[in-house]
Amino acid sequence: MEAAISLLKTRADASLAELIEFAGIPSISAQSAHAPDMARAADWLRARLERAGLQNVSLWPTAGHPAVYGEWLGAPGAPTALVYGHYDVQPPEPLERWSTPPFTPTLVGERLYGRGVSDDKGPLLLTVQAVDALLSATGTLPLNLKFLFEGEEEVGSAHLPGLVAARAGELRADFVISADGGMWSADFPSLTVSGRGLVALEFSVHGPARDLHSGRHGGALHNPLHAAAALVASLHDGRGRVAIPGFYDGVQELSPDERAGLAGLPFSDAAYLEQTGAPGVYGEAGYSTLERQWHRPTVEVNGLWGGYSGEGSKTVLPAEAHVKLTCRLVPGQHPDTIAARLAEHLQNQTPPGVRLELRPGDHAAGPYSLPAGHPLRRAAGQVLRELYGTPPVEVGMGGSIPILETFGGVLGLDTVLFSFAVGDENIHAPDEFFRIGRLYEGQEAWTRLWWALGNGQTDG
Amino acid sequence: MEAAISLLKTRADASLAELIEFAGIPSISAQSAHAPDMARAADWLRARLERAGLQNVSLWPTAGHPAVYGEWLGAPGAPTALVYGHYDVQPPEPLERWSTPPFTPTLVGERLYGRGVSDDKGPLLLTVQAVDALLSATGTLPLNLKFLFEGEEEVGSAHLPGLVAARAGELRADFVISADGGMWSADFPSLTVSGRGLVALEFSVHGPARDLHSGRHGGALHNPLHAAAALVASLHDGRGRVAIPGFYDGVQELSPDERAGLAGLPFSDAAYLEQTGAPGVYGEAGYSTLERQWHRPTVEVNGLWGGYSGEGSKTVLPAEAHVKLTCRLVPGQHPDTIAARLAEHLQNQTPPGVRLELRPGDHAAGPYSLPAGHPLRRAAGQVLRELYGTPPVEVGMGGSIPILETFGGVLGLDTVLFSFAVGDENIHAPDEFFRIGRLYEGQEAWTRLWWALGNGQTDG
Repeated sequence: MEAAISLLKTRADASLAELIEFAGIPSISAQSAHAPDMARAADWLRARLERAGLQNVSLWPTAGHPAVYGEWLGAPGAPTALVYGHYDVQPPEPLERWSTPPFTPTLVGERLYGRGVSDDKGPLLLTVQAVDALLSATGTLPLNLKFLFEGEEEVGSAHLPGLVAARAGELRADFVISADGGMWSADFPSLTVSGRGLVALEFSVHGPARDLHSGRHGGALHNPLHAAAALVASLHDGRGRVAIPGFYDGVQELSPDERAGLAGLPFSDAAYLEQTGAPGVYGEAGYSTLERQWHRPTVEVNGLWGGYSGEGSKTVLPAEAHVKLTCRLVPGQHPDTIAARLAEHLQNQTPPGVRLELRPGDHAAGPYSLPAGHPLRRAAGQVLRELYGTPPVEVGMGGSIPILETFGGVLGLDTVLFSFAVGDENIHAPDEFFRIGRLYEGQEAWTRLWWALGNGQTDG
Repeated sequence: MEAAISLLKTRADASLAELIEFAGIPSISAQSAHAPDMARAADWLRARLERAGLQNVSLWPTAGHPAVYGEWLGAPGAPTALVYGHYDVQPPEPLERWSTPPFTPTLVGERLYGRGVSDDKGPLLLTVQAVDALLSATGTLPLNLKFLFEGEEEVGSAHLPGLVAARAGELRADFVISADGGMWSADFPSLTVSGRGLVALEFSVHGPARDLHSGRHGGALHNPLHAAAALVASLHDGRGRVAIPGFYDGVQELSPDERAGLAGLPFSDAAYLEQTGAPGVYGEAGYSTLERQWHRPTVEVNGLWGGYSGEGSKTVLPAEAHVKLTCRLVPGQHPDTIAARLAEHLQNQTPPGVRLELRPGDHAAGPYSLPAGHPLRRAAGQVLRELYGTPPVEVGMGGSIPILETFGGVLGLDTVLFSFAVGDENIHAPDEFFRIGRLYEGQEAWTRLWWALGNGQTDG
């Protein structure tokens, strides 16, 4: 193992160059114009897995973008880990707010800027570089590995559950280690032990059959933008609490111990506002910022548009308005139930003079948690403590990784999130970046984690 | 005069060909990329005025787009009419909703489709064709004429008041006849005797310094789209009435006679809904549709946008949201006062966690009315009665023509709106069209109106 870690150090420049090449491919799964780039990224990754010395490397087709698979099964009797990551990235828009071109990864000091470098190409690639080094340096691995990298995480992993079910035999394993996830802070190690679920919904409000002159018709017909705004406003009460009937049914309140634990974490609203640039914190009354981020459900509007947004004025009463929204879910909430309650609420709140059109979104995932005392949680914690010299803080995650539910529900496997991205790296936003030091730390950590899991060293 | 009307009939095809050429120039005043097209349209119009036999034809520069001026002053002792129109047009977006290219005017049956054909290039051009025919056929005119065609009507005529003030001597006249306006229905003649005023305002809601991941940060920071929606929703109460404190101060209620007159007009909500394709009428409770369109003030959102509007999902908590809105005003309301009350309301309603940025809009105009018994109202009514065989219905106008206030306030002149556009011609919207028969009816009507005004035949 130490020979592999030494080899990784000699390969540091090559590792970075590889990430720059990989992140230069605009593999945007949401935009059909980028389908050729998706294919190119999948093929790049397939070739890289082969070069690492993995076997049965192949593209696994789906009705959408393919997954990339590779394995090494030369450790009979040792456990088998399924490694997960995704090679697709978020759309880069708004382009004008990037300081460097999103698909020309650019190193500025210790940070590599580019779309997808943090979510998830850097954290994914370092696992391949780690297995390559282990096989090059030692000719063997301490455990069996199966790599599954999907191309639809950023559009909700719609085809992954079906793929995993169809390939359940080939994917048989003892547990899952995910390269997707992310640490909470750049200042100390953390381990994510819970994540919120997700359900998405879109709606449109239709008024007149075409855009009308707002002078001639204003006041006589309902303006779809007014109706859409009223619908969005109806989702929350004046104290930041979701106002959809039944939304909080089944949600557990945090215990006094849990609240005290969260209050003791190194977090301050002032530092958070400094980091995000927001004028103030805001949310459900009666909860702290971390409680709201990790353990309270939300409804968020991700997009709202209608009418004229160009230069100058256009006195138009628009024919329609559009809204995209997502709910974050916590234990006790099911995506289907919440989607149904949200839809019913919107229907009940739609005013006269307009027509509501609801469309299911393309995202859904249940909430997740890795129980205290779980062997994966202990092993990962031990590796991080040795690497950073301090035990990791155990944190929740506001975001959702739908695969946690897939691997749990379809394969019956627990997943540990072992990503070396950090939560401040502007993922899903302009100027996404990845700390290059984390590329090397991640390579070493994954090598040590495999070693620990392969040798049964899972006591913390 | 009859010789001129005969000549116009022989020139019918040429008149239409000219309009197709003129409307083919994308003179979009709101979009700076179209500045060369604005210059081309102004020059086209200048050349057309010269060919009509007018004198002192010239472009009058402004800090924005130039006005086009021409005159004929060979009737000493006769009154002088100032003819107004505008050669700029609205932006054509959304382009995908046009059935024919907006700047390739296309004749389908009796309708010419294209941006600006109804507002205002057709109604403007026919006045030039009429004076051309009068001068060609008779060598003289029954009154003195000054033509002033501006290029900024669709962006609020910001430089017109200054231009009119600076050129007040050259523009001295007895009254104004506007080619901009529009008839109420294609089925019978109408004369517009009042119009609502206008004031515009834009605002942005700022949250975090950059777009954030809505899973990671949702619930902890205010979402600018939620705040913008709540601000828009706060503009009206649940019964369609504007909820801005002081908004209705000074507004006169309609008299029982006025309400009875409006109720007697040939108008039905059912036909109106058929025409507009809206699911229902909606607006301030306690008023009929025509009362709300013509005589009640409004606040309308013309554009609202923020976050992701592309294909698929993007789980973003956006950094900002944007709103464009306009108020329509009635007698008793002043644009500056209403803008101030609107701004104060928005400031008071802005929730914590976001920052409000207000920007004055580029439109403002007071409300207008032409008094009963006014000689212009009588003369125009008589011409329409003779042309169509039925007296015109006197109607209000929901829209605003800022020049009415300019000519009244700066030059002290009354204006009669004498446009041959019709209110259902999709102005400011996709598939704008102009009824070609109205081109010829308008040429004849303007010829007869000038004759009547020049010969003092203003009794109805």
